[in-house]
Amino acid sequence: MESLRKYMFGLMVKAWRICGKAWTSIWTVGKEDPRRIIHAFKVGLSLTLVSLLYLMEPLFKGIGSNAMWAVMTVVVVLEFTAGATLYKGLNRGLGTLVAGSLAFLMEFIATEYGKIFGAIFISVAVFVIGSAATYMRFLPDIKKNYEYGVVIFLLTFNLITVSSYRVDNVLKIAYDRFYTIAIGCGICLVMSLLLFPNWSGEELHNSSVSKLEGLAMSIEACVSQYFKDHELEPDISKEESEDHDPIYMGYKAVLDSKSYDATLAKHASWEPRHSRHCYRYPWQQYVKLGAVLRRFGYTVVALHGCLETEIQTPRSVRALFRDPCTQLAGEVSKALTELADSIRKRRQCSPDVISDNLHKALNDLNTALKSQPRLFVGSETNQTSNMLALAAVTARQSVDNHLPSANTESSTLHDWKLSKRVSKKTKEARKVLRPTLSKNAITSLEFSEALPFAAFASLLVETVARLDIVIDEVEELGTKANFKEFYADDEITVTCERFKVETASDLKNNLPEQAAE
Amino acid sequence: MESLRKYMFGLMVKAWRICGKAWTSIWTVGKEDPRRIIHAFKVGLSLTLVSLLYLMEPLFKGIGSNAMWAVMTVVVVLEFTAGATLYKGLNRGLGTLVAGSLAFLMEFIATEYGKIFGAIFISVAVFVIGSAATYMRFLPDIKKNYEYGVVIFLLTFNLITVSSYRVDNVLKIAYDRFYTIAIGCGICLVMSLLLFPNWSGEELHNSSVSKLEGLAMSIEACVSQYFKDHELEPDISKEESEDHDPIYMGYKAVLDSKSYDATLAKHASWEPRHSRHCYRYPWQQYVKLGAVLRRFGYTVVALHGCLETEIQTPRSVRALFRDPCTQLAGEVSKALTELADSIRKRRQCSPDVISDNLHKALNDLNTALKSQPRLFVGSETNQTSNMLALAAVTARQSVDNHLPSANTESSTLHDWKLSKRVSKKTKEARKVLRPTLSKNAITSLEFSEALPFAAFASLLVETVARLDIVIDEVEELGTKANFKEFYADDEITVTCERFKVETASDLKNNLPEQAAE
Repeated sequence: MESLRKYMFGLMVKAWRICGKAWTSIWTVGKEDPRRIIHAFKVGLSLTLVSLLYLMEPLFKGIGSNAMWAVMTVVVVLEFTAGATLYKGLNRGLGTLVAGSLAFLMEFIATEYGKIFGAIFISVAVFVIGSAATYMRFLPDIKKNYEYGVVIFLLTFNLITVSSYRVDNVLKIAYDRFYTIAIGCGICLVMSLLLFPNWSGEELHNSSVSKLEGLAMSIEACVSQYFKDHELEPDISKEESEDHDPIYMGYKAVLDSKSYDATLAKHASWEPRHSRHCYRYPWQQYVKLGAVLRRFGYTVVALHGCLETEIQTPRSVRALFRDPCTQLAGEVSKALTELADSIRKRRQCSPDVISDNLHKALNDLNTALKSQPRLFVGSETNQTSNMLALAAVTARQSVDNHLPSANTESSTLHDWKLSKRVSKKTKEARKVLRPTLSKNAITSLEFSEALPFAAFASLLVETVARLDIVIDEVEELGTKANFKEFYADDEITVTCERFKVETASDLKNNLPEQAAE
Repeated sequence: MESLRKYMFGLMVKAWRICGKAWTSIWTVGKEDPRRIIHAFKVGLSLTLVSLLYLMEPLFKGIGSNAMWAVMTVVVVLEFTAGATLYKGLNRGLGTLVAGSLAFLMEFIATEYGKIFGAIFISVAVFVIGSAATYMRFLPDIKKNYEYGVVIFLLTFNLITVSSYRVDNVLKIAYDRFYTIAIGCGICLVMSLLLFPNWSGEELHNSSVSKLEGLAMSIEACVSQYFKDHELEPDISKEESEDHDPIYMGYKAVLDSKSYDATLAKHASWEPRHSRHCYRYPWQQYVKLGAVLRRFGYTVVALHGCLETEIQTPRSVRALFRDPCTQLAGEVSKALTELADSIRKRRQCSPDVISDNLHKALNDLNTALKSQPRLFVGSETNQTSNMLALAAVTARQSVDNHLPSANTESSTLHDWKLSKRVSKKTKEARKVLRPTLSKNAITSLEFSEALPFAAFASLLVETVARLDIVIDEVEELGTKANFKEFYADDEITVTCERFKVETASDLKNNLPEQAAE
């Protein structure tokens, strides 16, 4: 009895814990992005509205049980962003329309033949159209913009063609279906376009801004960590620390952004032009910018890699180059932040985005490197020369501990091979052994001490070169998206007013051309 | 008349060209992956089969117009891979079942109240359940494995609840719907599991192999191009050449593989265990391996970046290090190929995967670097020292050409700022001007000539360190997936037979535990 009570109590505690976890998860999802809560209510509201078609007597009389199609449409079409809803809604409408027309043609032919030949004809048609439409879905152009439409086409075509065999008035079915789907789509569009809309384009725009800012943060954090006076505690497990590492957090979003960007751009291209300017908004340019930022991000990852590598330039040596490097990183980071700012405010980027300071920082780094030539000569080799031998001894001891029977006369590498062969039992031993040996093998090489720092400096200079490409893309974005001109508050503005007038008229001339695209 | 004929002819030529293009596109899609053609035929066949429910008299008598649900299920559920079909089919079944039960409960309560209160109750239920289910879709755990099921749940719940208001026997609706959906799912499962199945797991497995091989190819191509005797023709446009660049082709698939890997792993986890071993197949380990390979890929990108950077170590200097670098890259590449091979053949990777040669190559590179200490001193500075001045002159001339009115007395940097301000008209001039200046600014810095080579060498050593992590992951994959042991054909095999027996018994002991997961 007592044990049962204990068991029940334990069960309740467990259930309580699971509930708590679930609640935390539910709470986090809403806190991360409160638009999700709004979206959930929007869907609930739409479904209730569409249910009224069924529930209210006068509406039901008009539409009847076909209201089912409207319900189905709302569930399937209403998506989080306006662009996604439009993409699905328009595809659904288009697919239904095309399928209805084709099915009507088929039925017309099928009724010409008798009952049996009609059935055969329909079967063949279903097979051929089904195969062809499925194959079409693999075509890149279709896949990109119309895949959902093809699915709906196939669905509607089959439903109408097949049911036409039993029902006389197939036109009525097609008409009813289209009609109710239009009602469903209408509700979805109103909900997603007018009631707290979430624009895919806005999302893409903001994600570009935050990617630029993340990279800026990453570079600064990277350099400041590289020149820190003390080592970080090594006992924090790598995976755990990675989630809170500001460097990693900065570039993480950039690296895997490809498919997300492409989806957002696809949906954004279906959205109405919600800016005052009437032209085709260059969403693809955002995708291009994303690709360039990814390339930039790879360099930052390599820079980050310099912090984690096995061979390290001594901190005393690094300290010599702290100021120019920190300055250079600061300037690159400032330029990226300025670019992010210009995109956020939808204005052309400042002409000062690459400042004199950047050039000065490059020069300073150059001077600093030149002033320390002896660093680049392999020096102080004596202290590490015996490391390989040491590693060999350590490794052999380790093998001896785990494999008392192994041949202790052979070389360490032989031992190591042996230990690899003994799987399962000495797996742990091997885990400890092999990577350590390999790491030591790298560490013990007497590379010039400056080599890792040279890599760091070289990658830092590389970011400047990549920054150039990023600026190009942001400028192109500014031009294509007709961002407003940059007006500085300093004296140079006066000098150039003459040109600005010209620019404005040029802009007007360009507008119709761009709108016709 | 003549002009009309010409016009018609032109039109026909155009139409012919468009047809040709479409045909090429259609042909390419099939040629790239012939399984697509098979899949298209499978869908056609399934649709025809399901249509028979409607077309054949005896079948129609049993099922009636509910056959529509079967048609719909086939169109929506039958996907390219078996895993995706199972994921959708099982989710659809589960969603329908849960929704049916809940809707039945709702109807039971609603009929207790009168007609009007019943309608209000149903509206409220639809709103609450609709909002809650939509919100649920954002939860990471649900999103990962059950998103489609939630959509179907919502769909079915609404359809049944709403129609229950007009129809008396709601249990019959729910039953019919479930019954026909089961038929549809059944056809889909037979088609995707038994008729030329495409396994997501197989796809994931193969993509891991090809990613490893791609990286191996990339590294070798990278190093061989770095030490090539002559420059590549610079007039090939970058974007065009990128598509045929073996280096880029090698790592391209690795970089953006995250979402693809995750989807494949998700679908694979729904697939039945189609191996002889009866345990949970570690698909997530493939995803982890993919993440590690992406990290490796970033280093390769940085290595590739060294080939494209503005400052370059002279070819004569690089040639001094050709042999050790080429050897090192060859060894890394060999190791990667060996890992790919072991995964392809589903066996544990060879203990020789990091060979003595790799260590030797590292040592050789070290020796080579030590033997050329003077390279790491900033030398031959005289030839580039005047480059900034030269760039300034060139830039000023360029500005003068485009801006006759600009102040020619000021410094180049001032000119450059000016030119930035003059948008539109001198945009082209600016395009030419700014990046060039910035590039020159980098190039003209008199960094030690060895700096870029040091970065290259350092990154090459970095790949060795990363290789270690890749090997760890592949080994873990081999253990978790119970790949077969590695048997070498050399003499060492004899020494270790004793351990193998132990291993085999260990394996057996582990099996039930793993199967119980």
